[in-house]
Amino acid sequence: MSETAAPRRKTRSDGERSRAAILEAAVRLATTEGLGGLSIGRLAEEIGMSKSGLYAHFGSKEELQLAAIEEAGRIFVAEVIVPTRAEPDGLARLRAVVEAFLSYVEREVFPGGCFFESAAAEFDTSPGPVRDRLVEYLEGWRQKLGELIVRAQERKEIAAEEDAAQLAFELDAFMARANDAFVLSGDPQAVERARAAVRARLELASAGRRPLSRRSRQAPPGSRA
Amino acid sequence: MSETAAPRRKTRSDGERSRAAILEAAVRLATTEGLGGLSIGRLAEEIGMSKSGLYAHFGSKEELQLAAIEEAGRIFVAEVIVPTRAEPDGLARLRAVVEAFLSYVEREVFPGGCFFESAAAEFDTSPGPVRDRLVEYLEGWRQKLGELIVRAQERKEIAAEEDAAQLAFELDAFMARANDAFVLSGDPQAVERARAAVRARLELASAGRRPLSRRSRQAPPGSRA
Repeated sequence: MSETAAPRRKTRSDGERSRAAILEAAVRLATTEGLGGLSIGRLAEEIGMSKSGLYAHFGSKEELQLAAIEEAGRIFVAEVIVPTRAEPDGLARLRAVVEAFLSYVEREVFPGGCFFESAAAEFDTSPGPVRDRLVEYLEGWRQKLGELIVRAQERKEIAAEEDAAQLAFELDAFMARANDAFVLSGDPQAVERARAAVRARLELASAGRRPLSRRSRQAPPGSRA
Repeated sequence: MSETAAPRRKTRSDGERSRAAILEAAVRLATTEGLGGLSIGRLAEEIGMSKSGLYAHFGSKEELQLAAIEEAGRIFVAEVIVPTRAEPDGLARLRAVVEAFLSYVEREVFPGGCFFESAAAEFDTSPGPVRDRLVEYLEGWRQKLGELIVRAQERKEIAAEEDAAQLAFELDAFMARANDAFVLSGDPQAVERARAAVRARLELASAGRRPLSRRSRQAPPGSRA
């Protein structure tokens, strides 16, 4: 890829407007062809813009990939976190966040499933700033789940004896597997299995030491997840 | 890639010997550079063999990829299934298979983590025979877990009320997440979290309707997983 073309600077507002449009295209391209395939040249071809115009926004392929990750993060927050803010803090909020994630998978917000899951699988053996940033996002997500669990514990909705990080791992595992399986085979059953798994696990976590009745573990499909 | 070179046929036994060696290299290459990057040309370069020699074994890139999948399947069975055959059928065998999988991840049998997980993530949005075969392997694995669960139910070691396919989904989710996280960050903690999750879930499944004591759910780390 030639880097000799001198980028022509646009005014800030023009630049900002086109940066948003470019990033939208970059994220779309990254989810279908892979974040690794996202280069200045490939993106220029896709959106019919000159490579030099793109270099005005992103100095390198890596910068473009990092910018696409941030844009995907913005979309993730808008889809999975923001819509749950009206829920009361605690167990209700935790359940809403899990359901928002599963809905984001089912609605195919990104055509290749969760952006972070597919990008992480792609870069897991490629050390560097792109992988580091993806690790931060995935760890941040598990940490967010852990914080919601701790709030639910403070409100006595989840037993104090539950290890919040362990429970966050388990919920995250169900969600990630639903994503993988849904993308791979298009079968919505995996998402339903994840819903059932999360429901049973949170019933158990809120029941704490108390005896567990079969009825409370297997709520009917129409019940609130 | 040129396909014009006429392959020179070797004797059967020579061909069989080198096919095994070639497949071993192919699987190794596929796990580090991706199954999608596994081409006749790239493999020829890697093992210092002529492309025409490789065409004698595999007629196309896709044939090579499918052969690499079968070879990875053979390794998976040898690593995860065969060593557990001495265990008594039922819950002990199920636990042994889960532990063999987690050990196979930790021991980095494939440098990029479980071959099937990484290949599936790579091909999930690429319809065709390669994806179809990977789906068969992943579904076969979940089915194997389901069968082991049913055998444990027949022996009254797992409650009859447990939905075997649902439980298989949950165990598979813990194992897959351990693999992802271990490959991504090299942190063995994810594997330990998966062990704890499986242990607690199987305790619950074997306890059935009976009240669940905290002690039985959180067995000490040294206990048999």
